[in-house]
Amino acid sequence: MFSPMIRELMESLRCLPGVGPRSAQRMALHLLERDRDGAVRLSAALKQAAEGVGRCQHCRTLTEEKVCQICANPGRDEKLLCIVENPSDVMAFEQAGGFSGRYFVLMGHLSPIDGIGPEDIGIEQMLKTVADNRVDEVILATNPTVEGEATAHYIAEELKSLGVTTSRIAHGVPLGGELEFVDGGTLAHALAGRKKVEI
Amino acid sequence: MFSPMIRELMESLRCLPGVGPRSAQRMALHLLERDRDGAVRLSAALKQAAEGVGRCQHCRTLTEEKVCQICANPGRDEKLLCIVENPSDVMAFEQAGGFSGRYFVLMGHLSPIDGIGPEDIGIEQMLKTVADNRVDEVILATNPTVEGEATAHYIAEELKSLGVTTSRIAHGVPLGGELEFVDGGTLAHALAGRKKVEI
Ligand SMILES: [Zn+2]
Ligand SMILES: [Zn+2]
Repeated sequence: MFSPMIRELMESLRCLPGVGPRSAQRMALHLLERDRDGAVRLSAALKQAAEGVGRCQHCRTLTEEKVCQICANPGRDEKLLCIVENPSDVMAFEQAGGFSGRYFVLMGHLSPIDGIGPEDIGIEQMLKTVADNRVDEVILATNPTVEGEATAHYIAEELKSLGVTTSRIAHGVPLGGELEFVDGGTLAHALAGRKKVEI
Repeated sequence: MFSPMIRELMESLRCLPGVGPRSAQRMALHLLERDRDGAVRLSAALKQAAEGVGRCQHCRTLTEEKVCQICANPGRDEKLLCIVENPSDVMAFEQAGGFSGRYFVLMGHLSPIDGIGPEDIGIEQMLKTVADNRVDEVILATNPTVEGEATAHYIAEELKSLGVTTSRIAHGVPLGGELEFVDGGTLAHALAGRKKVEI
């Protein structure tokens, strides 16, 4: 019963993750009834970003610049390279603070079932970066999932011959979490990875 | 740490109801990493709707057409007029089925505190419609809220002199609901509005 333009708006909003038919209707009517300026601004931002955002030449993260702000920062240690799956992982590390090296963003993980191989996640470019910059240590910070672990393992194998130190971020019980709410896999991992307490 | 275009996209997405900084980041990265076509389609739909959607000349609902599909349908009974607050209420009645009259959409409710008076919700136009079409019955289907009740009461007073039958939709326990989950106000309303069982 909604007019064609409103129906098209509702259907288009479904491309957003987590937005079903009910939320799409609520969003479309909210914008049309109360925030047309917001709708126009969002329209422009979507078009600009969809057409303008590419990849950083060095680390592959999403950016409209040739080189992202982190890669362009001469203060970041190029001997230390942290490999992550997604741009949001870079953000998570930056917000946590304490890391002064550089990143390499795979923009995914190995997934033979989906036909995603090493060439799709920039492995060759990463190996070249490690060699060119004479990187001392590569930190594998892919997700603690089956695919993330497999990807980390594959990269570690590839790095072997380059004589670079390779490390994996620690997995275990999250700080501030209560044991009873931690899933079994994490708990088993935390137990197996226990460290001697020095006193 | 995200580039300006990506930050602008994340900020613009916040105009959507229910979208906080975390969802906005997730939505922006999802579109840029996996669905640029969706982003371009949404951009066009937003612009088109924000610039093209106006109001139906007869019932005030949102539409890009001069007269909405319901008002343009000669099969709808113009002697029966249902007054609702929002376009989504029209949709709710249409989906429920069983109503063959027409609607009048206030696009809000009276709210003296926000400076919203009768002229902002089209009361004059509604009264003219009732007189011009010689409407037999006006059904007040504003929301069962303080403002909705006050608006319904105001409209009923205005209609008095026109000699038209005025009714209010029934309020009570929702069908299929369990009493223990119904709020106290609704339950009191349902009790006060009880009807004698005919046997
Ligand atoms: Zn970069
Ligand atoms: Zn209409």
